[in-house]
Amino acid sequence: MSGVFITFEGGDGAGKSTQAELLEAWLEARGRAVLRTREPGGTPLGSRLRELLLHGGEEIGEVAPRAEALLYAADRAQHVARLVRPALDRGDVVVQDRYIDSSLAYQGAGRVLELAEVRRISEWAAGGLWPQLTVLLDLDPAAGVERRRARGGAADRLEAERGAFHEAVRRGFLALADADPTRYLVLDATRPVQDLHRDVTARVSELLEA
Amino acid sequence: MSGVFITFEGGDGAGKSTQAELLEAWLEARGRAVLRTREPGGTPLGSRLRELLLHGGEEIGEVAPRAEALLYAADRAQHVARLVRPALDRGDVVVQDRYIDSSLAYQGAGRVLELAEVRRISEWAAGGLWPQLTVLLDLDPAAGVERRRARGGAADRLEAERGAFHEAVRRGFLALADADPTRYLVLDATRPVQDLHRDVTARVSELLEA
Repeated sequence: MSGVFITFEGGDGAGKSTQAELLEAWLEARGRAVLRTREPGGTPLGSRLRELLLHGGEEIGEVAPRAEALLYAADRAQHVARLVRPALDRGDVVVQDRYIDSSLAYQGAGRVLELAEVRRISEWAAGGLWPQLTVLLDLDPAAGVERRRARGGAADRLEAERGAFHEAVRRGFLALADADPTRYLVLDATRPVQDLHRDVTARVSELLEA
Repeated sequence: MSGVFITFEGGDGAGKSTQAELLEAWLEARGRAVLRTREPGGTPLGSRLRELLLHGGEEIGEVAPRAEALLYAADRAQHVARLVRPALDRGDVVVQDRYIDSSLAYQGAGRVLELAEVRRISEWAAGGLWPQLTVLLDLDPAAGVERRRARGGAADRLEAERGAFHEAVRRGFLALADADPTRYLVLDATRPVQDLHRDVTARVSELLEA
């Protein structure tokens, strides 16, 4: 029995946690040990870094883009070395919320840093570890904007920019999926939760039998 | 008037701080604005990272080698973007204790990570910024061990290992200097403080006139 590494990707609110939770329960019902984890923040070092990145505030000032990318990479290096690899070596199934693909999709959308270098550093941080399966829960961010508009109130400039950014993140994920169709399972996140779960477990079953 | 970037390198106790202090006073006496700084820890983010790296202790557990290298790189990225580049843009002289060469010499001696990749990540973190002058204060670490031995007490296994490690760090610095003789000024750190200072300022004078 060998370990299996599965990641969930997609924008915020696409349902990654719900699907990860359902998959965890499904795997445990089949007698598999599961490590359910996430980036950033899956280790004690990682949660300190996450705190710095998200709530550093005035005390640490604005974090330079390269410094930010390197902190996410440091979190990843620690997480892979201390949690993910040991779990896979034990034969566990690792079910993880966000991984390298998130770094690439978000950095690509921000367009501040060269994507090739971010990928190179991420891969080095992870020691070349890629998941056997990445489930992309694909959701049109415009749907969210439309819903907010319907509730009343015009979209302001910031909201419009956010919309364009999240559009770019979505295109980034879809491009990553196109480039690696064997690893990726792309699902329409607007479908019912149980339908999505059935598609996920169908694919995971194949992996477990392989 | 344009900025000048000067770094001091060498093992602990080689006299880097003393020489940096003397150089700072010499520059200021000549009317130059000086930023005297150091890595790691020159920014608020950096000092938080330094704290994590040096005093994280049991709370964060053992930091994986790649995570550690990436945290040093994150500190460097923040330091260069927020302090060093702005100072150089203002025309200041930056006098800095340790920089990329330290990462290379110490990682090279530790031999856990591929040096080419550490160099690539360091250069990316720094946005390709190299000093115009690097002063290496070269000191035989065996001298230190000899002095301890003379004071009584045999060198234990750990001390011997440390000796070998510091020998490797020294060789690393000397190899970096050999590979880049235009940038490097190598000085014998056992010479009198004022003699060393005279050699440093002679070289810095050339830079300021150029």
